[in-house]
Amino acid sequence: MMAMKRLIYFISDGTGITAETLGHSLLSQFTGNGFELITLPYIDTVAKAEETVAEINQANTSNTQQAIVFSSIVNPEIRNTLSTANAKNLDLFEYFLPVLSETLEQEPNQLVGQSHAINSNMYSYTHRMKAVHYALENDDGQHLKDYNNADIILVGVSRCGKTPTCLYLALHFGVHAANYPITEDDMTNNNLPPALQAQRNKLYALTIDSERLSSIRNERRANSTYASFEQCDYEVRFVESMMKKARIPTLNSTQLSIEEISARIMKDTGLKRHSS
Amino acid sequence: MMAMKRLIYFISDGTGITAETLGHSLLSQFTGNGFELITLPYIDTVAKAEETVAEINQANTSNTQQAIVFSSIVNPEIRNTLSTANAKNLDLFEYFLPVLSETLEQEPNQLVGQSHAINSNMYSYTHRMKAVHYALENDDGQHLKDYNNADIILVGVSRCGKTPTCLYLALHFGVHAANYPITEDDMTNNNLPPALQAQRNKLYALTIDSERLSSIRNERRANSTYASFEQCDYEVRFVESMMKKARIPTLNSTQLSIEEISARIMKDTGLKRHSS
Repeated sequence: MMAMKRLIYFISDGTGITAETLGHSLLSQFTGNGFELITLPYIDTVAKAEETVAEINQANTSNTQQAIVFSSIVNPEIRNTLSTANAKNLDLFEYFLPVLSETLEQEPNQLVGQSHAINSNMYSYTHRMKAVHYALENDDGQHLKDYNNADIILVGVSRCGKTPTCLYLALHFGVHAANYPITEDDMTNNNLPPALQAQRNKLYALTIDSERLSSIRNERRANSTYASFEQCDYEVRFVESMMKKARIPTLNSTQLSIEEISARIMKDTGLKRHSS
Repeated sequence: MMAMKRLIYFISDGTGITAETLGHSLLSQFTGNGFELITLPYIDTVAKAEETVAEINQANTSNTQQAIVFSSIVNPEIRNTLSTANAKNLDLFEYFLPVLSETLEQEPNQLVGQSHAINSNMYSYTHRMKAVHYALENDDGQHLKDYNNADIILVGVSRCGKTPTCLYLALHFGVHAANYPITEDDMTNNNLPPALQAQRNKLYALTIDSERLSSIRNERRANSTYASFEQCDYEVRFVESMMKKARIPTLNSTQLSIEEISARIMKDTGLKRHSS
């Protein structure tokens, strides 16, 4: 019989995003033999908490490893109900809220679901939605683009991570991010493409190892010239040299997730997050 | 003289995403007189921590309210250095790591930046990137779409939140989300558009209050028929009736952020997050 994975619950009275983020950060410090992840959002009444406790206890009867619960529950009564489950319970609010309350000299408002609500998000919701539409409309550089309203323009070869990064910057930070893929048409000489020359101060380049690029392109168009190592290597070297000549900051994305690429871009450029 | 806002630092040895999420969830429990938010990612050496302490202390000399630091620092030495700052320090790892270590009967690996690294993200990075490209290619329903590979197809009037929600579902959960805007062409009768009829089980509708829709559309095309309250109200009522007749689950997005819409969709549909 295969060993059962340890059950990990992310439980919240809201979306569950905070509990997932908290839990995953902590779990990433351990190797474990695999975890089974279960997110339960919108547990916002004592009755729902009681059902959840029953569900956890039921699941636990057939598992030799104690379940772990990462939770962010604002209401103390719901939190107490949840803590009766046969599981190790780590609650964000239980640990930190009293300390913060003392520092701010204020009682918590106990309003549920505030963190990801439309009106109280850390970064302005309107800004973020406008930025998403901006990113979609200014993806790809094919036609005339609205570069005047760009906060940043990502450049690089096709499939080095520009588009997902632009979307992440928009969704999370409300940054207006355009992107311009450098294609063979732009490789007649070593200068920046004409469309970009007036935008030098907004440019930020992504590069990638040729082998990794070839592998990504092969998933899209298997065995094409476009995906060949030779073609990828030619383009990568050409663009790296172009960016070096133009002194455009360049980040190698090969080993980085879009979250990491985005965080590094925000740090390198000093771009402001659009707080409400 | 205007009162200075209280300084809030999010400090991490990695991207800072966890510290920001943790901090914002906690701060959303307080009203405060406004906070000044500062994210400092990649503080991954004692020397950088010392610089950060100096920066915080310097900023604090001209502020009557003590700064608050939300941090997620894996290395105890860096964490200790940071804790010498003249600020209230709330560190995720300091509180929770010992408890988790005891439960898992394992020492933490003390590897930095694991949570948002490409190889150890909670949800499979490859899945997420494929899903982002899928969402982009299956946005808008204009031409023939790859609905067979969709996990979900969002339907609704233009500008009710379908596109940003699809992108969020893709970026965060690796869900393949397509979307199909119901336009006037689809309103000749009360049946689902032909393109959607074979996809009934994958459909999920978003609706929105007519007034809010009109306001959103006005930002895009001011004073157009498209943005008029009458047009918006007509479309919204038509689509709501169409969805009711076809018994498609429908969520009103008016008061919800895309994080909330996404969390509710995941809960309502039971869609699986793509864990690695």
